[in-house]
Amino acid sequence: MAGNSFGKLFKLTTFGESHGMALGGVIDGCPSGITLDLDAIQTEMNRRKPGQSAIVTQRKEPDEVKFLSGIFEGKTTGTSIGFIIENSNQKSHDYSHIKDSFRPSHADYVYEKKYGIRDYRGGGRSSARETACRVVAGAIAKQVLKGIEFHAFTSSVGDIFMEKPYQDIDFSAIESNIVRCPDTETADKMISKIKEIRKAGDTIGGTVTCVIKNVPLGLGEPVFDKLHAELGKAMLSINAVKGFEYGSGFCGAKMKGSEHNDLYNTDGTTKTNLSGGIQGGISNGMDIYFRVAFKPVATIMQTQDTIDKAGNSVKMDGKGRHDPCVVPRAVPIVEAMAALVIADYLLLDKVYQ
Amino acid sequence: MAGNSFGKLFKLTTFGESHGMALGGVIDGCPSGITLDLDAIQTEMNRRKPGQSAIVTQRKEPDEVKFLSGIFEGKTTGTSIGFIIENSNQKSHDYSHIKDSFRPSHADYVYEKKYGIRDYRGGGRSSARETACRVVAGAIAKQVLKGIEFHAFTSSVGDIFMEKPYQDIDFSAIESNIVRCPDTETADKMISKIKEIRKAGDTIGGTVTCVIKNVPLGLGEPVFDKLHAELGKAMLSINAVKGFEYGSGFCGAKMKGSEHNDLYNTDGTTKTNLSGGIQGGISNGMDIYFRVAFKPVATIMQTQDTIDKAGNSVKMDGKGRHDPCVVPRAVPIVEAMAALVIADYLLLDKVYQ
Amino acid sequence: MAGNSFGKLFKLTTFGESHGMALGGVIDGCPSGITLDLDAIQTEMNRRKPGQSAIVTQRKEPDEVKFLSGIFEGKTTGTSIGFIIENSNQKSHDYSHIKDSFRPSHADYVYEKKYGIRDYRGGGRSSARETACRVVAGAIAKQVLKGIEFHAFTSSVGDIFMEKPYQDIDFSAIESNIVRCPDTETADKMISKIKEIRKAGDTIGGTVTCVIKNVPLGLGEPVFDKLHAELGKAMLSINAVKGFEYGSGFCGAKMKGSEHNDLYNTDGTTKTNLSGGIQGGISNGMDIYFRVAFKPVATIMQTQDTIDKAGNSVKMDGKGRHDPCVVPRAVPIVEAMAALVIADYLLLDKVYQ
Amino acid sequence: MAGNSFGKLFKLTTFGESHGMALGGVIDGCPSGITLDLDAIQTEMNRRKPGQSAIVTQRKEPDEVKFLSGIFEGKTTGTSIGFIIENSNQKSHDYSHIKDSFRPSHADYVYEKKYGIRDYRGGGRSSARETACRVVAGAIAKQVLKGIEFHAFTSSVGDIFMEKPYQDIDFSAIESNIVRCPDTETADKMISKIKEIRKAGDTIGGTVTCVIKNVPLGLGEPVFDKLHAELGKAMLSINAVKGFEYGSGFCGAKMKGSEHNDLYNTDGTTKTNLSGGIQGGISNGMDIYFRVAFKPVATIMQTQDTIDKAGNSVKMDGKGRHDPCVVPRAVPIVEAMAALVIADYLLLDKVYQ
Repeated sequence: MAGNSFGKLFKLTTFGESHGMALGGVIDGCPSGITLDLDAIQTEMNRRKPGQSAIVTQRKEPDEVKFLSGIFEGKTTGTSIGFIIENSNQKSHDYSHIKDSFRPSHADYVYEKKYGIRDYRGGGRSSARETACRVVAGAIAKQVLKGIEFHAFTSSVGDIFMEKPYQDIDFSAIESNIVRCPDTETADKMISKIKEIRKAGDTIGGTVTCVIKNVPLGLGEPVFDKLHAELGKAMLSINAVKGFEYGSGFCGAKMKGSEHNDLYNTDGTTKTNLSGGIQGGISNGMDIYFRVAFKPVATIMQTQDTIDKAGNSVKMDGKGRHDPCVVPRAVPIVEAMAALVIADYLLLDKVYQ
Repeated sequence: MAGNSFGKLFKLTTFGESHGMALGGVIDGCPSGITLDLDAIQTEMNRRKPGQSAIVTQRKEPDEVKFLSGIFEGKTTGTSIGFIIENSNQKSHDYSHIKDSFRPSHADYVYEKKYGIRDYRGGGRSSARETACRVVAGAIAKQVLKGIEFHAFTSSVGDIFMEKPYQDIDFSAIESNIVRCPDTETADKMISKIKEIRKAGDTIGGTVTCVIKNVPLGLGEPVFDKLHAELGKAMLSINAVKGFEYGSGFCGAKMKGSEHNDLYNTDGTTKTNLSGGIQGGISNGMDIYFRVAFKPVATIMQTQDTIDKAGNSVKMDGKGRHDPCVVPRAVPIVEAMAALVIADYLLLDKVYQ
Repeated sequence: MAGNSFGKLFKLTTFGESHGMALGGVIDGCPSGITLDLDAIQTEMNRRKPGQSAIVTQRKEPDEVKFLSGIFEGKTTGTSIGFIIENSNQKSHDYSHIKDSFRPSHADYVYEKKYGIRDYRGGGRSSARETACRVVAGAIAKQVLKGIEFHAFTSSVGDIFMEKPYQDIDFSAIESNIVRCPDTETADKMISKIKEIRKAGDTIGGTVTCVIKNVPLGLGEPVFDKLHAELGKAMLSINAVKGFEYGSGFCGAKMKGSEHNDLYNTDGTTKTNLSGGIQGGISNGMDIYFRVAFKPVATIMQTQDTIDKAGNSVKMDGKGRHDPCVVPRAVPIVEAMAALVIADYLLLDKVYQ
Repeated sequence: MAGNSFGKLFKLTTFGESHGMALGGVIDGCPSGITLDLDAIQTEMNRRKPGQSAIVTQRKEPDEVKFLSGIFEGKTTGTSIGFIIENSNQKSHDYSHIKDSFRPSHADYVYEKKYGIRDYRGGGRSSARETACRVVAGAIAKQVLKGIEFHAFTSSVGDIFMEKPYQDIDFSAIESNIVRCPDTETADKMISKIKEIRKAGDTIGGTVTCVIKNVPLGLGEPVFDKLHAELGKAMLSINAVKGFEYGSGFCGAKMKGSEHNDLYNTDGTTKTNLSGGIQGGISNGMDIYFRVAFKPVATIMQTQDTIDKAGNSVKMDGKGRHDPCVVPRAVPIVEAMAALVIADYLLLDKVYQ
């Protein structure tokens, strides 16, 4: 396997399986002299961790980060930051049912075929538990990016949408409810929906929208490494993501140029922001916003038909404790990946100033 | 600027401005011993080139590729392939109106601020003319990938959608009309729409869908470099793209797990394909399909308010010959970028076999 | 800091300071299905570890590797392999003398200036303790490269040289003495020399030669990434290395073409091997050999003049337990780095076959 | 083939065969706003080009660079700089004698085996003609690095050495003679030696030393990407190079720590400079110097035994016009590669300031 690294200058490399001894990573390229707020990092971890509310998986993992290097007397030294997150909960499950059979719409089958071997326990490396390491690195990136704000939130669950334009949203309300939708009324509907879906042993998809404020003008490289292209890749690399759009997105494809163009104010800001804060792949100083589509979790608490290694049809029952909807826990992951992208481009931009 | 390279093992690096002497590129990592069909490469170029039909820009560029290295007696030698495309048409235009003013929703303003200098003629490096080099490399990638089929087509123009499921499409009809929509009736509507839009001096957005057939199981790297993440980045790096979705995409975010899961046949194929041919970031042998959203072209033949370098409000008239809708010419570009991604992952997959 | 990764396809990323909690690393790109011999890995670690003999530092560190991921039921799974080596000995030293002063010919001064902060304990990240992680990864690379033999040995200490041509060396004698020179008589002289130097509170330089047997023809990329260029970089990245030569090396620069050319046998092997097993940057199937120069260890048990942070002249006494000559412990590090390079190129070569 | 790119932030990608239509390259990452001195670039090209004096190959190539992009009104724009060098002389030779046979100590044999096909004319991609592109990029890098001086010179030819310490050399004398040795007396001996060797139809090796002045403190990344490691790789990637040493080099391996350590002055400079301007992989503000060993050119004007593709023994006569000693023309190539390395690290260093 390749591809366990993300970023060019602010680079994260990760390792770890769902039920191995530990997950962890290395952050290479973090500037020196930054006083790290370890509590703020743990706060981000807690937003992602299982067992945090009634609408997420009831598995319990403390998800505590242990930093092994790169920090001295509370400050980053500029050397690589190694960290681990121990798996405390890894022995309690029974995975014999997926040892020899493939869960539908999971990675079991392709791992088996590609590698000839897989750590089947909890999905191994394909488990979304891998994203814990992204949140650690993203939390550090946020501290590098002081002043830049990342506001991700749940913008839909199933067919329940929050319809407000991003400019009208009170971001301080995001953490006021367990589904992380800043519109309380819509949040209540979403929570009810997820509870109902869980009761039926089913799961449901949703979307996360992210608004990034105070990004300086000039981030992004115009040809293959456009800022939104890297943001798109970052989001699409998160488990269960099926789509990404920024600014006007797929709606923009229905519009006319005369409607879509963002006209300039004399200070260089734009009167509208259908561009989503990025023009020609470079940030223009306006708010960046994008939307990410998550499919419904593949593990359902129902009996499904599937096949085993020998190619026999078998019945598989849903087992274990799983999220009925991945979106509430995905919110901090989306922010983390966005922070990694912005940190990487901010450092790159310094090269040419 | 960084970011003029794409791919890790089958790597394209490009250069060139819209109105400079030439555009060109280097393909590094092409396997040796491949007999190149130069006509097939030119055919792809012709599908992208301006002036090809009544609904695209009427500019004339022959877009002929000149190969300078890496090919000996008709075969690739394994060394880097250098090529150029001369700009024959570069002196005929008058760009004084954009020398000191910024076209709305173009990259003029951010280039000026980021680099402090810009080749304003025809948009310089930010011109979609840059994609000609991608088509050259993509055409070679297709020849490396013999047997794998890339079928991109126009799936919507404005609010005119082709609604057929991808399985029912006759791909041989794509080139039967100038808008590149395989459903003739819909194609006619799209063509009329584009003509009407052009007459109004306006532009319109649209979407391109791409189906890739015969991709072997196992391509993709499961964590950050998931196959669909790299496809997404590739598409988002194309000028004017605002969104990317694969498989069930944004629709999948409204669905339940019990509806969305793709159940296996005993041969490992799946009964449905909402996964879009990729599970856990790895191709599963089913058809890969995805959809790309293009915004309306920013240059319209109307007078717009904008600002000049000094921050003064100015009026700007649309000038030159531009596409009323980018989608028909984007079809071969989408295929080219898809071919580059698949070639890169196919080579990478050989490493671990 | 950047640059904590080595390799493109078989990639090692490391972290860790001399006196932090742990060192460790991530190996990305190791093929799946390899049954790892963990004892063989520890054996390599023991060849490098402090305290192993009378002529190396008397510090005690068990240097035990703990694998955290990427291995399942004894086999590599193809996912990234995370590992740590805990620092058991880190609290016992007093480093106050180097907290505010700079050891001559160490990295203290440049770290302070470049990063504005440094973990001064034991040299922090600049400590040769960092190479322990390289040995772990190299030991795994060797297992990936079954059949390819790496024979590094001490070829000189100060002005005591082992003069034999590499073809006449009995590699099985390397581990028969503590200085790792396969010629017993010369080894005795080297050992006496090192003991004498240590007694004087001084240190001494030396060279390591490495012979790699059974490398298949075809490894290496001909232009910037020539096989010997990457080997050279690998060796020069090891602490205290001042030079690298392969094949005829600096002696070759005194020769005539008619003396230097390696003539072919009809089977494609060459009658002589001044090329050092590499032609045009590509392995030719002959033995690869190269020589690496190590400077004398900078920490001496004598009083030296130096400066403190404020720029005052100060006296500094040598403290702690240090190697009088780095070469005996460098032997396994040279092998490890060579194995990493060969593994990387072997995987890359598979791409184009 | 991979590996046709060099550098991370100031990145050169090259293409081209000795006798193809053209060689060329792309420079990605050059900062914007630099007024390029095109004459200075051509001057560097002229120092490398064939036919420049009585002691180099008498082939004639104008080696004129044509820039295709990235420069606007005389200044770099920050976009990728594409350039080509046309091969004017490519049709005049007869290469039938090497079409089916392998020149000893050339890359013919390994190319044939690795790629299954080769452009045999003039060595194809393995020809040192490839280095012309490096000189173009290096000349631009020098202009980016204004104030940093690169002084490479011939320090030995065969067994004729220039023995002066680098501090005593008058660099302005380098270009005063055709062998590029700044000591006139030694230069005369070298020139006589080369003429004598040529008369005998033979070739001879030599060394190039390079001194870099005014490098700011702080360039280099301390672990795998040490500044001297990358310099070493850069030099070893040049055709015919067999060894690299910096600072005390191989001599340092014979020394004692008490002799070798560079003691500090109170301003942070060092009293001696055996470190060669680099400590712990990071420039310390002192002069950087290193030495590069070149083997004798493999093509000699004598009859040699070799083999053909079928494995038959054949006689091969030396043909064509070749350098009797590569060193005089290697001087600007060494400088160019050094400039590329320093430019890359200078840009990287800006990231963390």
